[in-house]
Amino acid sequence: MTWTLARRTERMNPSAIREILKLAERPGVLSLAGGLPSPDGFPVEALREASARVLRDTPREALQYAASEGYGPLREWVAARLANDGVVVEPGQVLVTTGSQQGLDLVGKLLIDAGSAVAVETPTYLGALQAFAPCEPAFAALASDDEGPKPEALAGAAGARFAYLLPNFQNPTGRVISEARREALVAAAQAAALPLVEDNPYGELWFDAPPPAPLAARWPQGTIYLGSFSKILAPGLRLGYVVAPPALYPKLLQVKQAADLHTPGFNQRIVHEVVRDGLLDRHVPTVRARHAAQRDAMAAALRAHLPAGAEWQPPRGGMFFWLRLPPGLDATALLPRAIAAGVAYVPGAPFHAGEADPRTLRLSFVTLTPAQLHTAIATLGRVVHEALAEQAGSALSLRRAA
Amino acid sequence: MTWTLARRTERMNPSAIREILKLAERPGVLSLAGGLPSPDGFPVEALREASARVLRDTPREALQYAASEGYGPLREWVAARLANDGVVVEPGQVLVTTGSQQGLDLVGKLLIDAGSAVAVETPTYLGALQAFAPCEPAFAALASDDEGPKPEALAGAAGARFAYLLPNFQNPTGRVISEARREALVAAAQAAALPLVEDNPYGELWFDAPPPAPLAARWPQGTIYLGSFSKILAPGLRLGYVVAPPALYPKLLQVKQAADLHTPGFNQRIVHEVVRDGLLDRHVPTVRARHAAQRDAMAAALRAHLPAGAEWQPPRGGMFFWLRLPPGLDATALLPRAIAAGVAYVPGAPFHAGEADPRTLRLSFVTLTPAQLHTAIATLGRVVHEALAEQAGSALSLRRAA
Repeated sequence: MTWTLARRTERMNPSAIREILKLAERPGVLSLAGGLPSPDGFPVEALREASARVLRDTPREALQYAASEGYGPLREWVAARLANDGVVVEPGQVLVTTGSQQGLDLVGKLLIDAGSAVAVETPTYLGALQAFAPCEPAFAALASDDEGPKPEALAGAAGARFAYLLPNFQNPTGRVISEARREALVAAAQAAALPLVEDNPYGELWFDAPPPAPLAARWPQGTIYLGSFSKILAPGLRLGYVVAPPALYPKLLQVKQAADLHTPGFNQRIVHEVVRDGLLDRHVPTVRARHAAQRDAMAAALRAHLPAGAEWQPPRGGMFFWLRLPPGLDATALLPRAIAAGVAYVPGAPFHAGEADPRTLRLSFVTLTPAQLHTAIATLGRVVHEALAEQAGSALSLRRAA
Repeated sequence: MTWTLARRTERMNPSAIREILKLAERPGVLSLAGGLPSPDGFPVEALREASARVLRDTPREALQYAASEGYGPLREWVAARLANDGVVVEPGQVLVTTGSQQGLDLVGKLLIDAGSAVAVETPTYLGALQAFAPCEPAFAALASDDEGPKPEALAGAAGARFAYLLPNFQNPTGRVISEARREALVAAAQAAALPLVEDNPYGELWFDAPPPAPLAARWPQGTIYLGSFSKILAPGLRLGYVVAPPALYPKLLQVKQAADLHTPGFNQRIVHEVVRDGLLDRHVPTVRARHAAQRDAMAAALRAHLPAGAEWQPPRGGMFFWLRLPPGLDATALLPRAIAAGVAYVPGAPFHAGEADPRTLRLSFVTLTPAQLHTAIATLGRVVHEALAEQAGSALSLRRAA
C-alpha cells in the first residue's frame, strides 16, 4: 500500500530538539537541551487541591464538552491580568488554547497561504517555524542587532502576512527588545500595515526588572498576542491563550473548533482555581528566584570553563543562554561528542529561518540544579577545549604539511 | 488595520451545531441538538481517585512536558484493547490526540493538498468536514443504501487521498455498516488502492450486540483508525487516539508536534489509571443501559407524536436518531419555530458534502432523561403537525384561488 502524502509534509523534519532529547535520555547525560522547567517549581499542592475542588464541586461541567472559546472565568482573568501590562482587551478577545504551541498553529491556519511571506527573527523559536511550516509560508528573516530586529527590516517586510516576534527573553537568544526599539518597531509596522504576532511565554520570568510593555499594548488592533501558563504553573496542563483583535476573532474561533473542539475544561477550571485567589503573586517570585540562581550558576560556570573566543550574554530573564563557540567550531558537529561526554544542548542551526551561524547553541538553565549546571558546563568546557586543541593540532599539521 | 486572511478561511463557516446550541441555551429549551453524553454517566468517583493518585504519586511527571507520541502505558493499553476487536497493532503505532477531533485535523494535514479529492459518506460527521476543510479538499460524496456506502461508489473514488468512513452508529444517521458490506468495501478499496480513514467514537455504545469488526482489522496497512475516550469516559478530558500504519507514523508524529507539542500528560495518566484496572468493563455496560433506555424513550415518543410521513429507524447503538420530516417540510426552516416552542435539534443540511435532503434532522437521545425526551418529542411533534396543517391550509388556499 502506498500513501500519497500532502505536499506540506516535505517541509516537515523531525523536531531537532526532540530527537536530541531522545539521545540525551540515557543515564549519565546532563541535559541543557530541552526547555523543561524544574519540577521543583510546580505548585503541586495548589494544583492537587484545585483538582480535588473542581471534581467535587463541578464534575459534570468540568468533564462535559465545553465552549470552543474557553472557560469564561479564565478568559476574564486573562483579560484582567493583561491590563496590568497595559494590554487592554475584552474577555471576548481571549481564546484559550491547548498550550501556546496550538496558538501558533491556529494563527498560521488563519493567516498563511502557501507561498505567503512571514517575517521572523533569526534565530527564532523553532516550534513556531514548525507550527507555521504546514501552511507552506516563505519565511523572511529580519535583520537585527542587540536591541532586537531592526525597524528598517520590518519596513522591508511590508506585504508579509505578519511578523512573528518574541520580545521578552527570546527563545533561543534570551534577548529582550528595548523600550525604544519596541516603539520604533511598532511605528514601522504601522507604516507598513504589517500585522504583528507577539509571542510572550517568558515575560513573567524576569530577574531584576519587568520587561517593557508588550507590542500589543502599543498597537492592539494590529497585534495578535500569545500567552502561556506552561512556564509560570506547569507545562503538562497544556494551557495557553491567543488574544486577537475583534475583527479576527470569529474566524480564529472556527479554526480552533475544527482543530480540537475545545481545550480540556477540567484543566482550565483547575488553573482558574489556582490563579483566581492570587497564587501567581506568591508563586511566580519563587520561580524567578530559582531561575535567577540557576542563571547565576550557569554564568559562573561558563566564565570558569569556556575558553577565550566563546561568546555569551547572561540573560536577564527567561530560560536560555545563547552561546557562540570559538571561531572554527561547529555546534552541530560537536553535539555527539558532547553527549558521549555527558552533556546535551541544542545546536543553533534549526532556529534559523535564513542562513545559520554554525558556532551557536542554546543552553537551558531551568531544569538542572546549580551543582548539576556546574558539572554540565565543566563537561561542555572540556569538550570545547579538546575540539579547539585538535583544531590547533590539525592546523599545525596542515602548516607542517604545507 | 486590514488583515489578509488565508484563502482556506473562506471555506469555514460557523459551526451550525454550536450556533444552534447558543440559541438553545436559554431556559426552557430542551436540547436534542448537541451530542453531549449525560453527565450521569461520567465515572466521577473513579476519575477523582485517579486524579488524586496521579498528583500524589507522579506529580512531577504528570505536570512536565511529555512525549508527543503520548503516555507509553496508555498507548500499550490502547493497542491491547484494539486486539479484542481484531485490530492488531503495536503500541508504537498509537498516537494520543487531544480528542479524536484533533486526530481528524492531523490526518487532514498529513494527506490532503488543496484540491485533493476526499471521499465521504453523505451525510457524514460535520466535525470531520470542518477538520478537513482548512486543507481545502474537494469532497466527493459516496452513494449509499441502508447497509452503508456502496462498494462501486468506493471504486469510483479511486485517486482520492482517502475515504472517510464511520462504520459504527454513524453520526448523524446512526447507521451500522453490515458485515458483508464491510468485506465488500475493503475489497473495493484495496482494488482501487484507496486508503481508508475509519472513525470509531461510538463502537462501544452498542445495545444488543457488538458491531462487526472494524475495517482496520481487515486492511491494517491501508487504514488509519481513530478512537476516543469521550463517549465511554468523559469528553471534557479531550482524549482520543489515531492508529496509523508504521510507514505513516513518523510524519503523523511531526504534524502532532507542530500542532500542540503533546496532549496533556496529566489527563493521559488519569485515564490510564482508571482503565488499567478494568473500569471500562464495569462502566461501559452502565452507559449502554442508560443510552438504550433513552433510545427506547425517544422511539416510543416519536411513534406517539410524529405524524404519518415522518421516517426514522431506531438505532442499535450510538447517540442519534436521524429523522426525515413529512414531504414538503424543511428542517432548517422549522428550527426557529421549534426552539421558540422549547425544543432544539440539528438540521441535516450541514452534514451533507453533496446535495442535502432538507427534510432531515438529527436528534440526540443521550443528554436528556426519558421523561424529558418524551416532553421534547411531544413538542417537536406539535410543531411538525402545525407546520403540516399550515402547509395543507395554504395548499387549500392556493387551490381555491386557482
